[in-house]
Amino acid sequence: MTKNLYGGIEGGGTKFNCAVGSGPDHIVNEIRIPTTTPLETVEHICEFFALHMGQLHGIGLGTFGPADVDSASSTYGYITATPKPHWAHTDILGMLREKINIPFAMEMDMAIAGLSEAKWGASKDDSHSLYLTIGTGIGGGYIVDGKPLRGLTSLEAGHIRIPHDRELDPFRGACPFHDDCFEGLAAGPAIEARFGQRAETLGDAHPFWQIEAGYIAHALVNYILTLSPKRIVIGGGVMQNQFMFPTVRRKVQELMNDYIGHEMITKKIGQYIVPPALGSRSGVLGAIALIMDSK
Amino acid sequence: MTKNLYGGIEGGGTKFNCAVGSGPDHIVNEIRIPTTTPLETVEHICEFFALHMGQLHGIGLGTFGPADVDSASSTYGYITATPKPHWAHTDILGMLREKINIPFAMEMDMAIAGLSEAKWGASKDDSHSLYLTIGTGIGGGYIVDGKPLRGLTSLEAGHIRIPHDRELDPFRGACPFHDDCFEGLAAGPAIEARFGQRAETLGDAHPFWQIEAGYIAHALVNYILTLSPKRIVIGGGVMQNQFMFPTVRRKVQELMNDYIGHEMITKKIGQYIVPPALGSRSGVLGAIALIMDSK
Repeated sequence: MTKNLYGGIEGGGTKFNCAVGSGPDHIVNEIRIPTTTPLETVEHICEFFALHMGQLHGIGLGTFGPADVDSASSTYGYITATPKPHWAHTDILGMLREKINIPFAMEMDMAIAGLSEAKWGASKDDSHSLYLTIGTGIGGGYIVDGKPLRGLTSLEAGHIRIPHDRELDPFRGACPFHDDCFEGLAAGPAIEARFGQRAETLGDAHPFWQIEAGYIAHALVNYILTLSPKRIVIGGGVMQNQFMFPTVRRKVQELMNDYIGHEMITKKIGQYIVPPALGSRSGVLGAIALIMDSK
Repeated sequence: MTKNLYGGIEGGGTKFNCAVGSGPDHIVNEIRIPTTTPLETVEHICEFFALHMGQLHGIGLGTFGPADVDSASSTYGYITATPKPHWAHTDILGMLREKINIPFAMEMDMAIAGLSEAKWGASKDDSHSLYLTIGTGIGGGYIVDGKPLRGLTSLEAGHIRIPHDRELDPFRGACPFHDDCFEGLAAGPAIEARFGQRAETLGDAHPFWQIEAGYIAHALVNYILTLSPKRIVIGGGVMQNQFMFPTVRRKVQELMNDYIGHEMITKKIGQYIVPPALGSRSGVLGAIALIMDSK
């Protein structure tokens, strides 16, 4: 067996997607593992990769956060202050390395999804691109020249504060840290908490989607002004509603009010704020891209 | 005469600061020119630099915005959609180059102030630092490894939307583009519009400073989550009030609520959110740093 493959793990709050391959046109095996306890989840991951052990150069891991992905830190590889039961302060990378003795690289889940879109997908020709997922959580990765931007820590842009009109939307917010931050107002669980039903069952015509699109547009405007991406790629369940992209784009233009006169915003916003090209695989492919490019 | 000096221009809405030198300990001449019309202002700038013409390697220009600082653009060197009378769509760089035939480099004013603090000042050892001015306008520069971050355009982070409690502060906002964006709520002219007197005459004990500190803290939290700077340097008149730094720091910690568990935020915030080290010269020194490092 020759070593021409890479492993990718996209660790999320509800499932861990694992794959073996070398790009979007070459995935030889993949599996979806439910996120239960760290011990049980890691065991299932290791069983999957054991099938390919001699073939793998290494494994990339993208994890939900907050997590410590600074390789110089003493808690590198840990999921840190997550509200997710069982997972706070878990040394996920250490647990994997103990069982699988090949190179690993680790990043935030949102950053790796951005990596794959920047390497193979919707932002392939852009030096600066923002990837955002709006689903169970909201997070982003800003990819600059093929690498996720990271400073003091990795980005946690889903938790920014945005205007919240309590008359229009009296919901107090669902974020256990910040109540009505962007994620606390607009992620899937926040929608479910408002209506007692899952966001995808609300129906495309439900009036809340206008409010939701407004929150997303406010956050995008803040990201555009603060990061100045050349493209914004948005994945996640919430954007599946077919009215969301055009509505969000229109609201971004309204809020921006031509302040930044660049044609990508004033005229070509349909090419500026776009869905992922790699679909549901962008996360796991990003984990593969991460380990491929860490060589 | 040997060419061992650099020129720096910090172009602001009320004045253009010009200097000749090679660093904070070596400024040989400087001048402050009121911002009137583009033609008159440029004429005064050129008179000043004419005194040093044989000595200069080049001139760095930091300008108020929005401006086009993308050297690949057809409107490179223009101040674009500014609300400032006479200055919209002004080819400031072209006007200077027509009269002074030496190399020029141009950046946003906020970015150059960040450059000098990162090269010589308060964020000198930090790979990722945010510089923010809160004065006549609000703007920021994010300096990554000695260069201002720029994507589609340069950053315009002063115009992000933040929560605005209209019961606490019924002011509608002073930004001609966005009403109550951060700049529209918290810059000097917004304070003046509320009280009919200049911000610096309000007195340190005026209750509005608590509201102002809250706006600044909300914006800083958004920047921290979106950019993850290793240090935040804040200049500008509004931060001169001696209670502002401690109050803003405390409010940032409250809003962050330990979500990012890094000690720079949880324990060492006094070293994390700091005033400039170069004082009122950080802008013009940054213009000098810009042309020095563009060689």
